[in-house]
Amino acid sequence: MAKRKIRMGMVGGGIGAFIGGVHRIAAALDGQIELVCGAFSSSAEKSKLSGEELFLPADRVYGSYVEMIEAEKQLPEGDRMDFVSIVTPNHVHFGPAKMALENGFHVVSDKPLCFNMEEARELENLVKETGLIFALTHNYTGYPMVKQAKWMIKNGDIGEIRKVVVEYPQGWLSTKLEDTEQKQAAWRTDPKRSGIAGAMGDIGTHAENLAEYMTGLQITELCADLSAFVDGRLLDDDGNVLLRFNNGAKGILHASQIAAGEENDLNIRVYGTKAGLAWKQMEPNTLTVRWLDKPTEIRRTGIGELYPAAVAAARIPGGHPEGYLEAFANIYKNVAMCIQARIAGTEPDEIHTDFPTVEDGVRGMLFIEKVVASSKSEEKWTKI
Amino acid sequence: MAKRKIRMGMVGGGIGAFIGGVHRIAAALDGQIELVCGAFSSSAEKSKLSGEELFLPADRVYGSYVEMIEAEKQLPEGDRMDFVSIVTPNHVHFGPAKMALENGFHVVSDKPLCFNMEEARELENLVKETGLIFALTHNYTGYPMVKQAKWMIKNGDIGEIRKVVVEYPQGWLSTKLEDTEQKQAAWRTDPKRSGIAGAMGDIGTHAENLAEYMTGLQITELCADLSAFVDGRLLDDDGNVLLRFNNGAKGILHASQIAAGEENDLNIRVYGTKAGLAWKQMEPNTLTVRWLDKPTEIRRTGIGELYPAAVAAARIPGGHPEGYLEAFANIYKNVAMCIQARIAGTEPDEIHTDFPTVEDGVRGMLFIEKVVASSKSEEKWTKI
Amino acid sequence: MAKRKIRMGMVGGGIGAFIGGVHRIAAALDGQIELVCGAFSSSAEKSKLSGEELFLPADRVYGSYVEMIEAEKQLPEGDRMDFVSIVTPNHVHFGPAKMALENGFHVVSDKPLCFNMEEARELENLVKETGLIFALTHNYTGYPMVKQAKWMIKNGDIGEIRKVVVEYPQGWLSTKLEDTEQKQAAWRTDPKRSGIAGAMGDIGTHAENLAEYMTGLQITELCADLSAFVDGRLLDDDGNVLLRFNNGAKGILHASQIAAGEENDLNIRVYGTKAGLAWKQMEPNTLTVRWLDKPTEIRRTGIGELYPAAVAAARIPGGHPEGYLEAFANIYKNVAMCIQARIAGTEPDEIHTDFPTVEDGVRGMLFIEKVVASSKSEEKWTKI
Amino acid sequence: MAKRKIRMGMVGGGIGAFIGGVHRIAAALDGQIELVCGAFSSSAEKSKLSGEELFLPADRVYGSYVEMIEAEKQLPEGDRMDFVSIVTPNHVHFGPAKMALENGFHVVSDKPLCFNMEEARELENLVKETGLIFALTHNYTGYPMVKQAKWMIKNGDIGEIRKVVVEYPQGWLSTKLEDTEQKQAAWRTDPKRSGIAGAMGDIGTHAENLAEYMTGLQITELCADLSAFVDGRLLDDDGNVLLRFNNGAKGILHASQIAAGEENDLNIRVYGTKAGLAWKQMEPNTLTVRWLDKPTEIRRTGIGELYPAAVAAARIPGGHPEGYLEAFANIYKNVAMCIQARIAGTEPDEIHTDFPTVEDGVRGMLFIEKVVASSKSEEKWTKI
Repeated sequence: MAKRKIRMGMVGGGIGAFIGGVHRIAAALDGQIELVCGAFSSSAEKSKLSGEELFLPADRVYGSYVEMIEAEKQLPEGDRMDFVSIVTPNHVHFGPAKMALENGFHVVSDKPLCFNMEEARELENLVKETGLIFALTHNYTGYPMVKQAKWMIKNGDIGEIRKVVVEYPQGWLSTKLEDTEQKQAAWRTDPKRSGIAGAMGDIGTHAENLAEYMTGLQITELCADLSAFVDGRLLDDDGNVLLRFNNGAKGILHASQIAAGEENDLNIRVYGTKAGLAWKQMEPNTLTVRWLDKPTEIRRTGIGELYPAAVAAARIPGGHPEGYLEAFANIYKNVAMCIQARIAGTEPDEIHTDFPTVEDGVRGMLFIEKVVASSKSEEKWTKI
Repeated sequence: MAKRKIRMGMVGGGIGAFIGGVHRIAAALDGQIELVCGAFSSSAEKSKLSGEELFLPADRVYGSYVEMIEAEKQLPEGDRMDFVSIVTPNHVHFGPAKMALENGFHVVSDKPLCFNMEEARELENLVKETGLIFALTHNYTGYPMVKQAKWMIKNGDIGEIRKVVVEYPQGWLSTKLEDTEQKQAAWRTDPKRSGIAGAMGDIGTHAENLAEYMTGLQITELCADLSAFVDGRLLDDDGNVLLRFNNGAKGILHASQIAAGEENDLNIRVYGTKAGLAWKQMEPNTLTVRWLDKPTEIRRTGIGELYPAAVAAARIPGGHPEGYLEAFANIYKNVAMCIQARIAGTEPDEIHTDFPTVEDGVRGMLFIEKVVASSKSEEKWTKI
Repeated sequence: MAKRKIRMGMVGGGIGAFIGGVHRIAAALDGQIELVCGAFSSSAEKSKLSGEELFLPADRVYGSYVEMIEAEKQLPEGDRMDFVSIVTPNHVHFGPAKMALENGFHVVSDKPLCFNMEEARELENLVKETGLIFALTHNYTGYPMVKQAKWMIKNGDIGEIRKVVVEYPQGWLSTKLEDTEQKQAAWRTDPKRSGIAGAMGDIGTHAENLAEYMTGLQITELCADLSAFVDGRLLDDDGNVLLRFNNGAKGILHASQIAAGEENDLNIRVYGTKAGLAWKQMEPNTLTVRWLDKPTEIRRTGIGELYPAAVAAARIPGGHPEGYLEAFANIYKNVAMCIQARIAGTEPDEIHTDFPTVEDGVRGMLFIEKVVASSKSEEKWTKI
Repeated sequence: MAKRKIRMGMVGGGIGAFIGGVHRIAAALDGQIELVCGAFSSSAEKSKLSGEELFLPADRVYGSYVEMIEAEKQLPEGDRMDFVSIVTPNHVHFGPAKMALENGFHVVSDKPLCFNMEEARELENLVKETGLIFALTHNYTGYPMVKQAKWMIKNGDIGEIRKVVVEYPQGWLSTKLEDTEQKQAAWRTDPKRSGIAGAMGDIGTHAENLAEYMTGLQITELCADLSAFVDGRLLDDDGNVLLRFNNGAKGILHASQIAAGEENDLNIRVYGTKAGLAWKQMEPNTLTVRWLDKPTEIRRTGIGELYPAAVAAARIPGGHPEGYLEAFANIYKNVAMCIQARIAGTEPDEIHTDFPTVEDGVRGMLFIEKVVASSKSEEKWTKI
């Protein structure tokens, strides 16, 4: 059977949303996926306008995800969407994800996985039962140099890991932005839409995921101190966490949305017995490798010998900077390749199965739960 | 009339080519353009295979650009391509560009414009006569911070310009790569396909274009010293040039493909009477502004108040790095918006007319001609 | 009375020692201080040889600090040393400091102040009683941009402080260096000479001091997790600490000597309600100021308008990098100026009283005590 | 005979001068040299006051260099100065240098060597005839990483050199500072005191010296375009120069004092057949080595295996930044060691003979002469 483009239906991401547009670019970038339908807004009118903007036929623009999934299911196999992309606020992740899985559609969902652990466990089970593909857009794992670091660690290049420092400072919520018209700020600081955590859920989980993805370790204990610095804010806007890992490594994770003047400075340093690695999201094509016994090396996207996963994650020659959208697109590309393999009845190339899954989502939800609990506790260590 | 996606036909860019893939991503990224047909290779078989990889219907994959333009012209207006994207080596720019223009198709062409000044003038005239849109992918002008710099200069923020230093060091041709299977190296070092200049044509023109685009000035005189350092190489692989501009400013331009270890380090500094600007392609989201009388400022894509052209050229919030492909896509997006306006019978938004045109291409060809002449001359200054 | 050079006697710092040489350079650099005598080693022979290397007359080179202080005291006022510089390992700070103070000599001592809190309190009292000058070489406070940051904070430029992140990663003890001939490693990892803390005492106290010096805040509670990663090491070689400050700010301090490949990367970020500051010791002439509402600024040693303390701490025009030794020398210069004022019977210029004192030393010893206690405790917070 | 401190007499450098203070710190830093006398100003009164500030006995403070050299010559060998340090404006280099040499004193002189080629040749001959030590403070050669680069090149580590780019942008003369009270600006822009070149003499010679010192090559031809951008300025404040070297390498040198906002950004890149080197004075402890066939390496002062000259030029462990003054002091230290060897009647250690000499000074004067001539010439290349 001839290969064809993989068909995507989108939930959320109407006009004016930030992350929906990112997902659409990421999906379109490699020419493997086409957007065929969507339920872009809880307002049917807004959904319709969004569909027009996106050049979709009117009959594939739906008023709700329920409507969309039901209608698409009725379409012939040659037309209907292959997977659902969920780009709504946190409290609307679970519903469409569950329904998509129950109706045989693969899922790409924004993070965190859902609203609470109960939902998380249910989704985890559903994915297991259905065997469908479920990708969670912890997009920072998509950067070539993150993959290079992961494989260097996996192959023992830097020795046994002793220390991990992962930081995610932002400054955009330094004032009470949620009291303005700023939509992004509004739902992220609202416990009803965001869940029990603010900054820790929004970006702390990215930091946690990056640390576990890159090192292959798991956090086993943590000690957290969360704060809401802005008067009247309902959820944490800053958090500092001590970490312990399953191999005995120690670590620090801190995330903030009141780190005045910081843009989106996710960064990680991993120290092993032989070398230390450092990577910064804002200069994502550089991985610094500091050896104990030879000169510091600068590894770069697209330059020299890199691990296959790092090579596969880059599109253009070194020195032509690849950015956030390309990293994000790597998740979509891998999902598309895996769906393509399903269609062809073959096994996907191992390199294409490299994307965060529902298990990562469950880890993230556990992290949220424990970090909030630890912050309230008088005890030093909270197990995870 | 309802808006629709703009339809692109591609000349060149078959499997294994570098820049063709870049153009396709750039065109796809914003969801405004769809690839509908192509003549991807001088080999009909290879063109066919490329078409399949790209999910194109077999009847829209052509064996040559002549065939493509003729066939597309016969298609109903609702189907046929709107513009041709030319991504072939330099000696095959002129033919398809000319034929496309003569047959009413808009053109996006890779740089340099063509093979020699004669071709350049003919294309310039054709564009004038037909009134069609002609964009040249001097893609580095697409970066938000390049546009910010351009507008700061235009508005006098840094005063009168005194000095411009533009550099484009690469190292990938430090050895005789053209003797290996490396296709990119082969045609770029071949006078029959590349023209009279090597590095100066390939990347020197980008440097020249960036300097003139950003400053709004024109180079009026130059003094060049070109070299072919690698034994047996037929075209220059390095060049150093003194510049004089039409406002009295002085400058330096140097480009190299034997600058060992350099990736793609295009960078520019512009010094005015009030401040100096510095931008580096490899960290493209940063523009450094060094004032005479206040602290150095770091301007960043997506952060704070920027000129509208810089705002329009960014897709995501500050701190989420945008790269080479996004900058490249800005040219395609603007072209799509201008074609969209043509279809709608309206004037395009001024911000969308901001892309390099055939005039920039003619300047580039002039630069190539003069820089080669100067290098051979005993006279110090060659007028341009 | 005519001004003269201030006369220094040194305890420790014989041939082969690291920090003794640093102190001598720092003292000599500004031409205000001359080394007139010393007890450079616990071996009289080694002390003698060191004295010769330093061009000292044999009769001013002593076999012990006791001998030195007693002998110098007998010399006429016009000859004898003005102050003692103590550059021995931690367990030999208290003895010479106490004896110097008791005999009327000012003191400059390396950090940490002494071996334990009991000694610390005794020195604190002695300084109060005698009224003598006591400087502790927390040399990182000597950098111009650290002083600029301190004064920006003090003057409210960045608003109320919310978060402080201070890091001090080094990698030089990643292996069991103390089992080799490396003298620096040997005493620093030996509880008998270093005290109850390893990395936390050696460099953690610098981090603590820098945070308190720069912010003007005090740490009130901490939660620590210290480790000795290298097998058989007797003291911590890594520590992660959550901080709480007296104004409600939160923070993180971590220090390590097993952060493989790190050189001496002390750095600090301070986030206020209006801006964030970032300073790195390895690029000490730059202070990054990230404003909430205007472009990020780069403040530089010697450039533009800076606070007087920052101006006074620089010797040469901007762009001529000043380093570690110059910062260190700023402490000696200020001490010399204060002694000069004593001699003249005047008050020192306020700018010259800006150096760490015995009180800072007591804070450091408290920090060591509490951080070690916290690490052993099951309770989350330890008050300081 | 027992070693003793080397004795320095200074010409120029009175209160308020910039470079005199730098020389004094550089001489004092390593404890090998003592300032014993001086003729600090053409005003005897100002010289006297300067001597007091410097704690010199009144009878060793002279009203002129003539007086100083004559008086010191009469002193017993055990007292009199060993060498003269000349820190006056350019037009007062020759006189004291000549007289010092003729009277048996070694010389350390600020750059450029003197006022014109005639003087230069005379000094060159005098040094040859007398066999005395003559050091020229092209201080940037004193940085450890400059020496590392020099030795890497000398040993062929980066292969045959093809291209050299050396830049020296400053911005401090962007306005007509010489019309204010600024003493530094006044003499540097005055042909009577500075010579035939402005920026090219002041900093262009540093760039030229750095390029020749680091590469071991000699510039054989150049093509220059000098400008005086500031209205009414009498000497060049900017210059762009194409270079050709004696091994066939090509290059660019540009220097400016109107590069608005630049501090003191001397930097150099050297590209060989195997690797490229990059060094920047404002981050002097880093040398970037970009290999053709392995990852980019970051070499750092005091870290890992370095060439002996680089090791000898550093005083403190890696990560403790050494700066401008330490690099400057390396020239003085080496001179002191060479004079020490003369006193002892031995050969100096080869590592101590590594400082710029009168020959470098002659090269610099030739460079000035030719660069000015080339700028006025219609011919492309001027031989040097």
